[in-house]
Amino acid sequence: MSNPLDRIKPRVRGLKAYTLSPDRASVKINQNENPWDAPEALKRETLRRMSARAWSRYPDFTPASLHEKLAAFAGWTPEGVVAGNGSNELIQATLMVTVGEGKRVLISEPTFALYRQVATVLGGEVLSVPLDDELQFDTDALRAAIETDAPDVLILCSPNNPTGCRVEEEELETLLEASGALVVVDEAYFEFSGRTVAGLLARHENLAVFRTFSKAMGLAALRVGYLLASPALAREVGKAVLPYNLNAFSQTAAEVAVEMYEAALRPTVRKMVEERGRLHAALDEIGGLAPVRSRANFMVVRSSIEPRRVFRELLARDILVRDVSGYPMLADYFRVSVGTPEENDKLVAALAEIFGGEN
Amino acid sequence: MSNPLDRIKPRVRGLKAYTLSPDRASVKINQNENPWDAPEALKRETLRRMSARAWSRYPDFTPASLHEKLAAFAGWTPEGVVAGNGSNELIQATLMVTVGEGKRVLISEPTFALYRQVATVLGGEVLSVPLDDELQFDTDALRAAIETDAPDVLILCSPNNPTGCRVEEEELETLLEASGALVVVDEAYFEFSGRTVAGLLARHENLAVFRTFSKAMGLAALRVGYLLASPALAREVGKAVLPYNLNAFSQTAAEVAVEMYEAALRPTVRKMVEERGRLHAALDEIGGLAPVRSRANFMVVRSSIEPRRVFRELLARDILVRDVSGYPMLADYFRVSVGTPEENDKLVAALAEIFGGEN
Repeated sequence: MSNPLDRIKPRVRGLKAYTLSPDRASVKINQNENPWDAPEALKRETLRRMSARAWSRYPDFTPASLHEKLAAFAGWTPEGVVAGNGSNELIQATLMVTVGEGKRVLISEPTFALYRQVATVLGGEVLSVPLDDELQFDTDALRAAIETDAPDVLILCSPNNPTGCRVEEEELETLLEASGALVVVDEAYFEFSGRTVAGLLARHENLAVFRTFSKAMGLAALRVGYLLASPALAREVGKAVLPYNLNAFSQTAAEVAVEMYEAALRPTVRKMVEERGRLHAALDEIGGLAPVRSRANFMVVRSSIEPRRVFRELLARDILVRDVSGYPMLADYFRVSVGTPEENDKLVAALAEIFGGEN
Repeated sequence: MSNPLDRIKPRVRGLKAYTLSPDRASVKINQNENPWDAPEALKRETLRRMSARAWSRYPDFTPASLHEKLAAFAGWTPEGVVAGNGSNELIQATLMVTVGEGKRVLISEPTFALYRQVATVLGGEVLSVPLDDELQFDTDALRAAIETDAPDVLILCSPNNPTGCRVEEEELETLLEASGALVVVDEAYFEFSGRTVAGLLARHENLAVFRTFSKAMGLAALRVGYLLASPALAREVGKAVLPYNLNAFSQTAAEVAVEMYEAALRPTVRKMVEERGRLHAALDEIGGLAPVRSRANFMVVRSSIEPRRVFRELLARDILVRDVSGYPMLADYFRVSVGTPEENDKLVAALAEIFGGEN
């Protein structure tokens, strides 16, 4: 008998599995989560609705009631909304219906590692344009790459994970117009940037916008994301979305979160944006550190001490950050999420101690 | 600007989206669910564990504690277990790492429609061997197809949805030995058949077994499935499984279900198996109906009246069954899930009325 692993695509066998170290700490600022738990009222209402429901029965084939709420929330049409098991699932579905051998996917790195991983599994060729020297999107270089290489799909994360830069609406519009590509904008962190490109959907049928409940919406445990696109594009992507992809509990919690957003969740977003400014200023005061201005609820910080060592020193002080030094261009950086005021104070004090010893 | 749908793979555009009619009825026997809701103790314990947890924090990167419980439950090694957002997600991941243009996937139809759908989206060629005249697996024909066409992947659903036939262990072993293919056995309904092929995993590294919590385990609302395979194969499939694919609520409920299976869930499986026999005998008494012996918690029934009309007549009596007449070989059949004794009595009475008028 032949080796069953011979049936695995060679490029998949060559991939390193994406993993995350299982370190734990009481100040957990490594995953860009909302540092405040989902409001008690949201949890209570979700549990109430779920205890009244039969768990043995399938969820909706497609979560139509959530699609309607999301459409109203986003100012778009329900036929152009697809909710899923995290936005990752929807990014994967979008790539499944567009990418195979011979297809080209353009990304701007450093960025979220999943785009490259999924495009590669699907047999696509990944083309990468680096951010500029100030870790901002280089839209001239992106436009040139679109003209030279005619990619089938362009994926931008805006605000970008892990650097926090944002693509401006006018710049995106030039890319949308330059390109026959499907343009995917991952807006996982848009609530912290005060902007969205969803307003371009009505004019640009080659745009798809992805969002998540894992950050501002405070529901990372429940895995809910959604896609906004033209109804025609949403229908095609839907063919690669598995039936019943969203479980009933997460669907219910997401509906409650949309209902309660203004009253219960937006205030935490405001606090995080304030804290982002305060944290940036405080880190900037520490010799050896240079935080990068961010539009999201995290920032990368250039460090005169090797990031791996900073990570370990912080972990020894019960603070978990993300070592991003393995990303392109970020050999000297670590990333911190914006935590609660108390968590941010602890981080600043710990870094002052670590870097104070150096100066 | 070119039409953005031009970026969608032509074979995807040619696919009809898999949908399910949104009909509702108080006797719902169209989706092979456990007709008894998840036990109160299971719901209570899950809600208790979840209200103690931060919803704003990501679930485990991989659900290791569930993998360990499932390994003990299935008699396999935790490194060879992958849990996911329904077994569909894991079937898709397995096909993503094995199937692309030029790859061949062998299935035996009529069967669960998802295999063909996903293999097609991924660019694979689907080869199909029909069931035999008695709607049983034709293992001779499958073996011949393996020898002639050298498929890369063979997928069998056992017990088979929608017909209820089972592949016997010795027959499967001849297929495993004849073939260099990856052999996928979807055991969504194995609890009702009294058998599993998981015992072959230790001897056959080209075997992968898929299971679900949506049927016997009574958790269809929560979307949990799992894969059993060699650790090497599980690792490769894991590269196409998205991080945090299983939300914390579903993971928690699945762990509680495994803990409570013997005491709280197995008794409902026993009752469904008893009811399956009773329902088969009762349907066999009705002139114009010929139920097919099944190893699962459903059966197909050959009908002298057009299945579409039977479906409508039953729906008018508040009973929802599945019209499977669009499947190959099943033009004259509908499918019913085994319900509670009361539900089965209502179904039999309604069918006696509908068919009584014909004779």
